[in-house]
Amino acid sequence: MEKLNGIKRPHVVIIGAGFGGVKAAKAFAGKAVDVTIIDRNNYHLFQPLLYQVSTAVLSEEEIAYPIRAFFRKHKNVDFFLGDVVDFDLEAKTVITDQGAVSYDYLIVAAGATTNYFGMESVEKNSFAMKTLADSVKIRNHILNIFEQADKETDAAKRKELLTFVCVGGGPTGVEEAGALSELIYSVMQQEYHNMDFSEVDIKLIEATDRVLPMMPETLRDETVNVLRSKKVDVRLSTQVMDYDGRKLSFKGGEVVPTQTVIWAAGVKAVPVVAKLGAETDRAGRVIVRKTLQVPGHAEVYAIGDSAHFLQDERPLATIAPVATQQAAVCVKNILHSMEGREMEFFEYHDVGSMATIGCGDAVMFKGIMKSKGFIAWAAWMVVHLMRLAGAHTNMIVIMKWLWNFFSGTRLGRIITQN
Amino acid sequence: MEKLNGIKRPHVVIIGAGFGGVKAAKAFAGKAVDVTIIDRNNYHLFQPLLYQVSTAVLSEEEIAYPIRAFFRKHKNVDFFLGDVVDFDLEAKTVITDQGAVSYDYLIVAAGATTNYFGMESVEKNSFAMKTLADSVKIRNHILNIFEQADKETDAAKRKELLTFVCVGGGPTGVEEAGALSELIYSVMQQEYHNMDFSEVDIKLIEATDRVLPMMPETLRDETVNVLRSKKVDVRLSTQVMDYDGRKLSFKGGEVVPTQTVIWAAGVKAVPVVAKLGAETDRAGRVIVRKTLQVPGHAEVYAIGDSAHFLQDERPLATIAPVATQQAAVCVKNILHSMEGREMEFFEYHDVGSMATIGCGDAVMFKGIMKSKGFIAWAAWMVVHLMRLAGAHTNMIVIMKWLWNFFSGTRLGRIITQN
Repeated sequence: MEKLNGIKRPHVVIIGAGFGGVKAAKAFAGKAVDVTIIDRNNYHLFQPLLYQVSTAVLSEEEIAYPIRAFFRKHKNVDFFLGDVVDFDLEAKTVITDQGAVSYDYLIVAAGATTNYFGMESVEKNSFAMKTLADSVKIRNHILNIFEQADKETDAAKRKELLTFVCVGGGPTGVEEAGALSELIYSVMQQEYHNMDFSEVDIKLIEATDRVLPMMPETLRDETVNVLRSKKVDVRLSTQVMDYDGRKLSFKGGEVVPTQTVIWAAGVKAVPVVAKLGAETDRAGRVIVRKTLQVPGHAEVYAIGDSAHFLQDERPLATIAPVATQQAAVCVKNILHSMEGREMEFFEYHDVGSMATIGCGDAVMFKGIMKSKGFIAWAAWMVVHLMRLAGAHTNMIVIMKWLWNFFSGTRLGRIITQN
Repeated sequence: MEKLNGIKRPHVVIIGAGFGGVKAAKAFAGKAVDVTIIDRNNYHLFQPLLYQVSTAVLSEEEIAYPIRAFFRKHKNVDFFLGDVVDFDLEAKTVITDQGAVSYDYLIVAAGATTNYFGMESVEKNSFAMKTLADSVKIRNHILNIFEQADKETDAAKRKELLTFVCVGGGPTGVEEAGALSELIYSVMQQEYHNMDFSEVDIKLIEATDRVLPMMPETLRDETVNVLRSKKVDVRLSTQVMDYDGRKLSFKGGEVVPTQTVIWAAGVKAVPVVAKLGAETDRAGRVIVRKTLQVPGHAEVYAIGDSAHFLQDERPLATIAPVATQQAAVCVKNILHSMEGREMEFFEYHDVGSMATIGCGDAVMFKGIMKSKGFIAWAAWMVVHLMRLAGAHTNMIVIMKWLWNFFSGTRLGRIITQN
């Protein structure tokens, strides 16, 4: 992959074009290294807004940015479309389904996948919320369900069709349940002239006794209250045991007939990370050094959802700010090691956390600062718009959000078949 | 499907939510009839802009409008998602894969599908341009081809990958070839830092001796000149004989190695129209009466691409303005027949024709009025924006067009996998 100018420059390979990988590649742009960023998709995905694609607020293109477009002006950064299947750490080579790529330095920023905690029936029959295809499948499924329910004359079957269950009280589950309520009661209800919407049942299921565990109690209570006011049946301390595609079973014996279970109850590192051979935690994340190096291989780094990093005796959360802050330190350490300089230890600086509960409503928390309602929602909008890739995308997304807020229509409600 | 208020109102069933079907359903809104519009998709598709989805200018949602959203305030219009498979004209019933729907009046506005003129190898191996899924498949394929070509070390294989052939010199083929040239030379060329774009070959193949046959000679020549200046190899009087997915053969023996053939060389009525049992033309269109009724069944009408209507001794073209003008007359005739009043004969009023050849360039013709270049392009933009469904969509589309025009980037270049 090196340039053909006769001088061999160090070749940095980055696995994954998520928040961490793209940040690292940008930090190398224009430096005296050649960079190859590898991803199985040709786009960077803005995962925090997947729930908006699944509920027809935004379209796929608005949260998926072509990776090559980031590096249009940076000729030292190249993209390689491929799925990493293994490593040859001795030969310093990454093995992909499209061939091998050798490296001098490697950054593993491969991200996370859905964790079903070993429940195969749930994995087989529920909807995940980690990829663009996942969110489009949910959108198509929900729209199809309503068309079926509109024709269904059997009340029990209609009830099964119109019961929607989100599992997991983290930001993804909370946001999905809130957005689903708005899609159904604010938008769909106006367009199915012969349907009884009191038959709709949206549930949010959480195994522990709290939603949004990173938030203080007052904001957790506020979240539950807002969701309940949006007709979401919030069920805490309720554990899913089995799901066959028609019947969802909870610990204790309760059974809910439903054709829609959206699983947002956990994530783990993508499986290929295990092939690094390093020690991992229970979620498959590599336990990295303070320098973000993978133990045993000084030239290999792991960041973001691929890494387990202890700070204040707790592993850091799998969120975008951790990945981007780690990317910056990791790039610095690689450049330092090239120059024989000392490395930095990583330390995460908290930027707070936030979650929307619906259109015009959110919760926000940082240090001792708490906020809720419209102000928190406005802040959430600004933060997410700033982080979205592409000035053009920002303009379109803000237009769609405002349109959605004021008009109560959503235009992306199409069932696609590609 | 009738309302449960005790009074039986006439039930009009419309097959197809294209330009004709939606126009007809809107014309019935608020009248003393119940209307059911049936379509196999839950959206109205703005087919003239499919080529922009296939070249990543617009996204699917911008040219696909949810059918129910048209009739949000019109409670006498209902939507039925289903694929029409047959008719029982005696029982006045439409048979769909989702059950039967009975009618008092029927409007067949079922649209067109791709015509391969019996060439099975072409049907099997080329890309069509009639559905949303077709255009997304083309986009994904082209983006994938470039990623493959970027890794390909064999020059002959690279050439095969980088040869793109559009077949058909009508508006669709011309617009697709022009847009492909811009996508490749204005956008992609900036982002594949190690690729030689002189290896790219875009061809437009037309069997007759002219492109855009509805245009006068000066505009046809202009079109060919503009396309050639965009490095499109325009080949007139060249007839496709066979395509196995790797080799495209022309009459006369020439063979072009390519993995991309986009077939825009002809359309025909969707096959189910034949089940009406009425006399059809060679393209499967029902030869309708001057009133747009299907001979033999006074309560059945056919319009748009489902109908063959002779005017000035030539069948009308399969274009949107014919369908919408016919929809208006057809609705009037149904209402007249309910009231026992006399029916109207349909007469098409020419609104002219236009085609874009690229960003900032188009040709336009009506009666003796000819226009080309930027003015025609601006007119094309205005006409298409006005016809697009949804005020919100219009704003987003104009923003994307302007962004595209001024910045030379396209953000929708994502390879989707759902």
